[in-house]
Amino acid sequence: MATGRLVEVYLDLLSQPCRAVHILLTCTKIPHRVPSLVCAGEHRTLDFTKLNPMQKVPVMVDDGFVLTESDAILKYLATKYDVPEHWYPRQPERRARVDEYTAWHHTNTRPHAAKVFILEVRSQNPDFSGSLVDEARLNRALSDLDDTLDKLESMFLRRQPFLCGDDITVADLLAACELTQPLGGGRDVLKERPQLQRWRSRVQSAVGEAFDKAHGVLYHIKETQQKCKNLY
Amino acid sequence: MATGRLVEVYLDLLSQPCRAVHILLTCTKIPHRVPSLVCAGEHRTLDFTKLNPMQKVPVMVDDGFVLTESDAILKYLATKYDVPEHWYPRQPERRARVDEYTAWHHTNTRPHAAKVFILEVRSQNPDFSGSLVDEARLNRALSDLDDTLDKLESMFLRRQPFLCGDDITVADLLAACELTQPLGGGRDVLKERPQLQRWRSRVQSAVGEAFDKAHGVLYHIKETQQKCKNLY
Repeated sequence: MATGRLVEVYLDLLSQPCRAVHILLTCTKIPHRVPSLVCAGEHRTLDFTKLNPMQKVPVMVDDGFVLTESDAILKYLATKYDVPEHWYPRQPERRARVDEYTAWHHTNTRPHAAKVFILEVRSQNPDFSGSLVDEARLNRALSDLDDTLDKLESMFLRRQPFLCGDDITVADLLAACELTQPLGGGRDVLKERPQLQRWRSRVQSAVGEAFDKAHGVLYHIKETQQKCKNLY
Repeated sequence: MATGRLVEVYLDLLSQPCRAVHILLTCTKIPHRVPSLVCAGEHRTLDFTKLNPMQKVPVMVDDGFVLTESDAILKYLATKYDVPEHWYPRQPERRARVDEYTAWHHTNTRPHAAKVFILEVRSQNPDFSGSLVDEARLNRALSDLDDTLDKLESMFLRRQPFLCGDDITVADLLAACELTQPLGGGRDVLKERPQLQRWRSRVQSAVGEAFDKAHGVLYHIKETQQKCKNLY
């Protein structure tokens, strides 16, 4: 383990994968620094583009080593730093379960939950897109998300408390942050899903106050949305 | 390393990720068995669904351990078996580069190259979809793929012969199999891309005859397409 220096992470806490990285750093106490919480559009500035030509957050800089992609950052941090092994188990079969979920996540949980959030926030803010949300598109997005939630329950959580086994891993962080995102648009996508609710509670208990700390900005948006609704 | 038994892999060689797994197994000589080359629709049978409720290939069974997702299977095989270390380096920074590419792959190289293939094969086989391809959709798919190819050149291959460094890794296998897929529809997507062509040649040299062995079915489709065209 490297000591005496800080891992730098460029984050926007309105981004789901950024929150997953933030939670891991906070609750495992990896010495880190968040140079500036990147605001909307700031990741397209020249300085940031030099660091990550993809112009996306999160970006991690560890002693000059620049890394993008939350999935890779989480696994690198869990490997390089002295964090409890359960976050990214070393035993090949257990590790493969985490890699299996994260690969699946990119084309399932991530796009489907994000789409519901985007469509709903836009629908509640006509200024955002200049038009009200397309009902048909939202229904399609909700149906895709439903299919993903079914699979999370019946395949990943089938006989175990966390997505990849008996203990929390980086996979649970990615999934929990993604599935919390639609709350920003006022929708709890796990409302009718007791099995997934229990899983979310286990994740929150396991990471303690790091969860709410990372989600503060999102909760604030949710409250603002609610206040706007109450005006009508 | 486990010895004396065979890894079982369920594959359909018309599927890009399946070919990546097939190439790794062949050229690293991991003792394996392909129970049956899964044909169109066969992965929806009851027996296969029991093995993988997602009804997708590839699926690996290693001494009773069932694993899905090509990304996870490749990394598991490279970790569990005694293959040259360059395939999935152990050093955290080098490994993180592979994880960074594979995470990016799922939402870039994979969907964009696959879409071009699907639209073109359909356009050449009116029976396939019952209608000719939508020109606008194909142009959009080609433009998305162009953007991905730009990034592969300018970011991943910027100063190195392979996507993640000086030697071939599982990331190159996933990318090369994906970018070869549109050949089945008659299009070499790297035709105007000398930098990527050189990379593809390096990948082919590194894996030897395993590349053509995995791509036999795809080449056959390409030839059939060509013969059909010549009839008109």
